[in-house]
Amino acid sequence: MRRGTNLPRVGGFNQMVVLDQVRRSPDGSSRSELAASTGLSLQAVSNIVARLIALGYVVEGERRAEGRGKPRTMLYLEAQGAFALGVHIDPVVVTSVLVDLDGRTMEKVVEPTPDGPGAVADAVAGATAAMLDRAGVDRSAVLGLGVAAPGPVDLAAGTVIRPPLLDGWDEVPVRDLLAAATGFDVVLDKDVSAAMVAELWRGNRMLRGTSLFFYTGFGVAVAVAHDGELLAGSSRNAGEVGHLVVDNDGPLCGCGNRGCIGISAAPSTLVAEAVAAGVLPRGTPASTPSELDAALTKLCRAAADGDAVASGILAVSARRVARGITVVADLVDAGVVVFGGPAWARLAPHYLPVVRRELALQATLREVHAVEVLGSAVGEHVGAVGAASLVLDGLFTPRPSGLVGGVATRAVAHP
Amino acid sequence: MRRGTNLPRVGGFNQMVVLDQVRRSPDGSSRSELAASTGLSLQAVSNIVARLIALGYVVEGERRAEGRGKPRTMLYLEAQGAFALGVHIDPVVVTSVLVDLDGRTMEKVVEPTPDGPGAVADAVAGATAAMLDRAGVDRSAVLGLGVAAPGPVDLAAGTVIRPPLLDGWDEVPVRDLLAAATGFDVVLDKDVSAAMVAELWRGNRMLRGTSLFFYTGFGVAVAVAHDGELLAGSSRNAGEVGHLVVDNDGPLCGCGNRGCIGISAAPSTLVAEAVAAGVLPRGTPASTPSELDAALTKLCRAAADGDAVASGILAVSARRVARGITVVADLVDAGVVVFGGPAWARLAPHYLPVVRRELALQATLREVHAVEVLGSAVGEHVGAVGAASLVLDGLFTPRPSGLVGGVATRAVAHP
Repeated sequence: MRRGTNLPRVGGFNQMVVLDQVRRSPDGSSRSELAASTGLSLQAVSNIVARLIALGYVVEGERRAEGRGKPRTMLYLEAQGAFALGVHIDPVVVTSVLVDLDGRTMEKVVEPTPDGPGAVADAVAGATAAMLDRAGVDRSAVLGLGVAAPGPVDLAAGTVIRPPLLDGWDEVPVRDLLAAATGFDVVLDKDVSAAMVAELWRGNRMLRGTSLFFYTGFGVAVAVAHDGELLAGSSRNAGEVGHLVVDNDGPLCGCGNRGCIGISAAPSTLVAEAVAAGVLPRGTPASTPSELDAALTKLCRAAADGDAVASGILAVSARRVARGITVVADLVDAGVVVFGGPAWARLAPHYLPVVRRELALQATLREVHAVEVLGSAVGEHVGAVGAASLVLDGLFTPRPSGLVGGVATRAVAHP
Repeated sequence: MRRGTNLPRVGGFNQMVVLDQVRRSPDGSSRSELAASTGLSLQAVSNIVARLIALGYVVEGERRAEGRGKPRTMLYLEAQGAFALGVHIDPVVVTSVLVDLDGRTMEKVVEPTPDGPGAVADAVAGATAAMLDRAGVDRSAVLGLGVAAPGPVDLAAGTVIRPPLLDGWDEVPVRDLLAAATGFDVVLDKDVSAAMVAELWRGNRMLRGTSLFFYTGFGVAVAVAHDGELLAGSSRNAGEVGHLVVDNDGPLCGCGNRGCIGISAAPSTLVAEAVAAGVLPRGTPASTPSELDAALTKLCRAAADGDAVASGILAVSARRVARGITVVADLVDAGVVVFGGPAWARLAPHYLPVVRRELALQATLREVHAVEVLGSAVGEHVGAVGAASLVLDGLFTPRPSGLVGGVATRAVAHP
């Protein structure tokens, strides 16, 4: 049901609008500039700014002349006014970050993924305590802990549901487990969703219109956003593309079809192809996620070092991924595709030119507009930074949908 | 840039919120019920209702007791308070409709698609004049004419861009052509987008969360909506799925791959298979869209009459379509799929059970939630009704995005 806007709600919404505007103006903005850019009255802006200063999120800076009027006091985000923690649980590594109010990474810890949920919770508790200690940040200044995990997730229960990429994590109450282990409020989301939120929040500020995030790590996934907002789906499980067929003659998938993108782009497939082609030695260990990840690194290094067979394997993989991206970009009429995730840094030099070329040649909408292809502006730890961004995003980003009811409340566990 | 809400904008937005709420309450609502359901003050609702009554869009009805308070006057949408025209330009037929403010179809004209844009414009001018005359509706009560056409479209120019399904329509300025021919304001959109808007506006009122519309006519397309709003894409050309591979061993597509859904589900493919299998006689005319459409009708009739070979051809087609829907539903985490379009009535009995079964068996998210599969609630002329709904939707549906700037203004041609 659509709801009208009444004053208290508009107050909260407008406060987020002003804070967001201050955050997006790193060179400072005056109260009158904020009034002009937000459409609010100068009086309303002044009241909101007073509240934001009292909360410690905004600070006054120098006075600066604007036109012929009297000099105005510049306002800036107080990046150290609050903090958020983020954790990305990946089959290969657990990455934890501490970010400030502006989403900048202050501390990070990357460690091999321990065996099982209990050990992961202990590791996260240790990592978060260590980061706060190193940064000299008090626990009371932390807004919460975001967790990015492979899907599917059950947000109401705060669990991951049999994620195919995490053995032994069936129905594990990740949210409550980490809330108990760390003592922080916890918000859970899928890895690809978190990564897209990081790009929207901290990364490329030009992600207008419809954009995609192609996540490549131990698995692949695609997030869709429109005008800065993630399309999270009916149960916040959007992003599954594993069975999108991208090669009629590709590897056989468990579903019975050939060339599904999940199996085609899996490290296990690339490593098996590399072993079969003699790029990697027979007997290369490839039975655990971290062994496969190490073998993938060797394959990428061989290609970078000029091994034509290795390059060929990655080029075929790039064309398959490009085919998948082309189909999804046409479906949602995307103008931008951002690539990222744990495997991206290694794959980027091999994938980027191929994906750009294939999109320009094959997209149905190529006559209407080009599709820009970018690497993540957030970088290697986009999953963990995204997890932390979930906390910031949930608290600070104005949501039109929040204004008219039907808010997609994100389940938060209080320890 | 996010903008705060200021009073004049909220006034317009709230007026739409109230009108929408009245429209969604066919059993009537009182001013105090509207205040409760919209979150607006009783005074604000009373002022808005006075304006809506003056505009002729809302009428007062009987007085009804609510609880122990004094009886309240019920308010109803005045469905005859204004009207909209809709036209669907399909390769086989041109369908024109006249709808009232509630989106109900009052008149319709269906005619074989004339040859070329000029002849189509003349036909539409004749059909709209005839419908208004039959319904006794004055031109001044018509809010505008919506046009649904095969994509891609260039909304800024009001043109269709080389639609593969309409020969001789390269860069045709459809919007200006129809505005000149009919004298009405014209809004242009893609057929699949119009159809989804019709479902959201007039059809299934339970399309919450993320939903899909699978359009099946001379071509296929898929629209995505979230919480009642169409995801139209960067250039309003979302919906292209033609090259989604749904069968490794399917028919060869012009793109070089096998089993793209566009070629797999095309009437030409089904008819060719039927001729090859002896279901349709050799030499069945199949060179024009209307000949192919007639042959498809014969194939569906044969299947309905118990021809097992005909049923088998449609079952294979249904499995291919189901595979495509499964992939898209997983990508966007859809909870509902609505099928419709010109070919749907004939295909429904063959497609529905197969699509339901395959989604339940194959969707990656099947363990998280079921995907409901429905036929269009609007019916056979969903494209034309959708085109008319574009006019109503553009004028009456409150859009959170309209409140915070970045409005996707729909280009409207004034004659």
